Amino acid sequence: MQDKLSLMIPGPTPVPERVLLAMARHPIGHRSAEFQTIVARTTEQLQWLHQTKNNVLVLAGSGTAAMEAGIINVLSKGDRVLCGDNGKFGERWVKVAQAYGLDVQVIKAEWGQPLNPEDFREALEADGAKQIKAVIITHSETSTGVINDLESINKHVKAHAEALIIVDAVTSLGATDVPIDQWGLDVVCSGSQKGYMIPPGLGFVAMGDRAWAAHKTSNLPKFYLDLGKYRKSAADNSNPFTPAINLYFALEAALEMMQTEGLEAIFKRHHRHRHATTAAMQAIGLPLYAAAGCGSPAITAVAPQGIDAELIRKVVKKRFNILLAGGQDHLKGHVFRIGHLGFVCDRDILCAVAAIEAALQELDAAPNPMGAGVAAAAAALQSV
Amino acid sequence: MQDKLSLMIPGPTPVPERVLLAMARHPIGHRSAEFQTIVARTTEQLQWLHQTKNNVLVLAGSGTAAMEAGIINVLSKGDRVLCGDNGKFGERWVKVAQAYGLDVQVIKAEWGQPLNPEDFREALEADGAKQIKAVIITHSETSTGVINDLESINKHVKAHAEALIIVDAVTSLGATDVPIDQWGLDVVCSGSQKGYMIPPGLGFVAMGDRAWAAHKTSNLPKFYLDLGKYRKSAADNSNPFTPAINLYFALEAALEMMQTEGLEAIFKRHHRHRHATTAAMQAIGLPLYAAAGCGSPAITAVAPQGIDAELIRKVVKKRFNILLAGGQDHLKGHVFRIGHLGFVCDRDILCAVAAIEAALQELDAAPNPMGAGVAAAAAALQSV
Repeated sequence: MQDKLSLMIPGPTPVPERVLLAMARHPIGHRSAEFQTIVARTTEQLQWLHQTKNNVLVLAGSGTAAMEAGIINVLSKGDRVLCGDNGKFGERWVKVAQAYGLDVQVIKAEWGQPLNPEDFREALEADGAKQIKAVIITHSETSTGVINDLESINKHVKAHAEALIIVDAVTSLGATDVPIDQWGLDVVCSGSQKGYMIPPGLGFVAMGDRAWAAHKTSNLPKFYLDLGKYRKSAADNSNPFTPAINLYFALEAALEMMQTEGLEAIFKRHHRHRHATTAAMQAIGLPLYAAAGCGSPAITAVAPQGIDAELIRKVVKKRFNILLAGGQDHLKGHVFRIGHLGFVCDRDILCAVAAIEAALQELDAAPNPMGAGVAAAAAALQSV
Repeated sequence: MQDKLSLMIPGPTPVPERVLLAMARHPIGHRSAEFQTIVARTTEQLQWLHQTKNNVLVLAGSGTAAMEAGIINVLSKGDRVLCGDNGKFGERWVKVAQAYGLDVQVIKAEWGQPLNPEDFREALEADGAKQIKAVIITHSETSTGVINDLESINKHVKAHAEALIIVDAVTSLGATDVPIDQWGLDVVCSGSQKGYMIPPGLGFVAMGDRAWAAHKTSNLPKFYLDLGKYRKSAADNSNPFTPAINLYFALEAALEMMQTEGLEAIFKRHHRHRHATTAAMQAIGLPLYAAAGCGSPAITAVAPQGIDAELIRKVVKKRFNILLAGGQDHLKGHVFRIGHLGFVCDRDILCAVAAIEAALQELDAAPNPMGAGVAAAAAALQSV
């Protein structure tokens, strides 16, 4: 059956109809007063979502462009940085930092485990000469479904007082609390096809005062991703280069919906969905991949034993038109991932759980009793 | 009146309804077989449009991202390059090259004049040691409405035999003949909101074999814009980073329309519109800004005497809902620009000319006789 796909992956996430229709408007001139009004409005909306008075700059580009911008605008060649790495997106941070010739000290945790804040504390306390210029971490590690303890790591960064904190919040922003100003997060990067409920193509970078001070002396080469140009244009509600106009239309519509729902309600919904999804998988007897207590509110990774994870995913797709995410890199076949990020309601969760149970039954691996997952999900959805 | 805007600027250009509707589809997973089919299809279509068997890589980003990628993927720090500069986008090439520490020799022409191919010949012939690594030029200079003689400049580059040619074809591709393989153009950059008839947000880079050879030794830092990653993924009909999925839907639909029209017919239409627009402006008595014989098929810049160009532009916008482009930088107030690029038909040209005449009449500067512009445009549209 055509056009009946349900996206339960960590991006692209489902897009509301009114956002799709906003995007289908005919473009307008990006140097017009009408577009300036949209930039002004979305800037306010983005500051609301980011809980910040700082600039939140919009790039035509993917989340990786935002991550790269987050590094190259505040650091200089040879700068010493700590990079957290407990999954594919932590690895990506390391690769970006190395591509620009930074002196990278990698702080690792096993895939499925969270980064250990103590590792950061030790490295930062050992740096009496204050040579560490930045601590770079992934908040929600999409590849493993682990949420890292940003708040604790950030406290150690603040105790160091010299290093900036640079955060990949691609799958945490709009899913859980990331109070940028309250915590003093210096650089926060995200992408549109996630909690924002719009298609891919926009990257976002929130930059605080200390980050802008570092921008002044940063010597890494940049042009398209030079956020100084974006800040200058933003002062006129404009963009230095032609913006992705129709994605701005979508952004405005989606953020309006988010403001109507309210930040607290959005976070509560994501936490409820994490709770329901994890409870259901445990009731079915499917082990969770993320360590206990570290599950991301955006995505739950499941590691079936004795049955190919890809097979479950394929049956769910083929029979019920629900797209789950597979495992990445060495997790392929070992893990499937259920996205519950963005425009996802309780029905979607219940439905995904039911489809997974049905797929297991088809694969002669039905839970005992059949329906245990739906029962657990329903109870969890009701309780929170 | 709302939503009745007619875009006659050099980007964003008008978008066909079927392209807008294609873009409003719900996103699909970018790692799915269905999306691979779209990548395979658009790759073929892009090769058709670019008249090349080379890779044509698609970036989530604006035309400037494509330009920057065009430089940083084939050059190394300190490389000597010749950069043509006869307008705002030539200037941008210089700025990008300088941002990455290239040794830039600027070959200038006055705004409104074309680059002189002889200047390139002389500089290239003087380089007996073959130290010039690239010649970087703008084909259609959007700020002035001048088209540069790419074919002649390229011949001098080919005679040099060492230098690559890197071309900004942002407003020439899809408007006039740019036979990449036949001419041996090494790197050609463009953007979606132009001849492609889709909204902004995609950049394109066509890379030939010599450019890929240079990529191997290029040492400029890059990650998001590293085209090697895109080439590797393209071999699997995929993308290294989350692509702008909905703009791909639009791309596929727009390129299908272009293939139906045919390359020759598209070029002929743009040339006819240039001819009609310039003939009309001359009949009205409004001087053209570009030197005779050098008008771009994408855009005509007009330099009214004794009347503020912005005033004409504002009346045309306010009274007739047609958006013309203003002058950039020092040309503001001195020049207005009529875009005739992309999804533009004869009616649009006739209508823009009539609106300009009407605006002049409202400003007590009616052409003599009134209607001279429409008459000239109509005759020109009929003759080609």
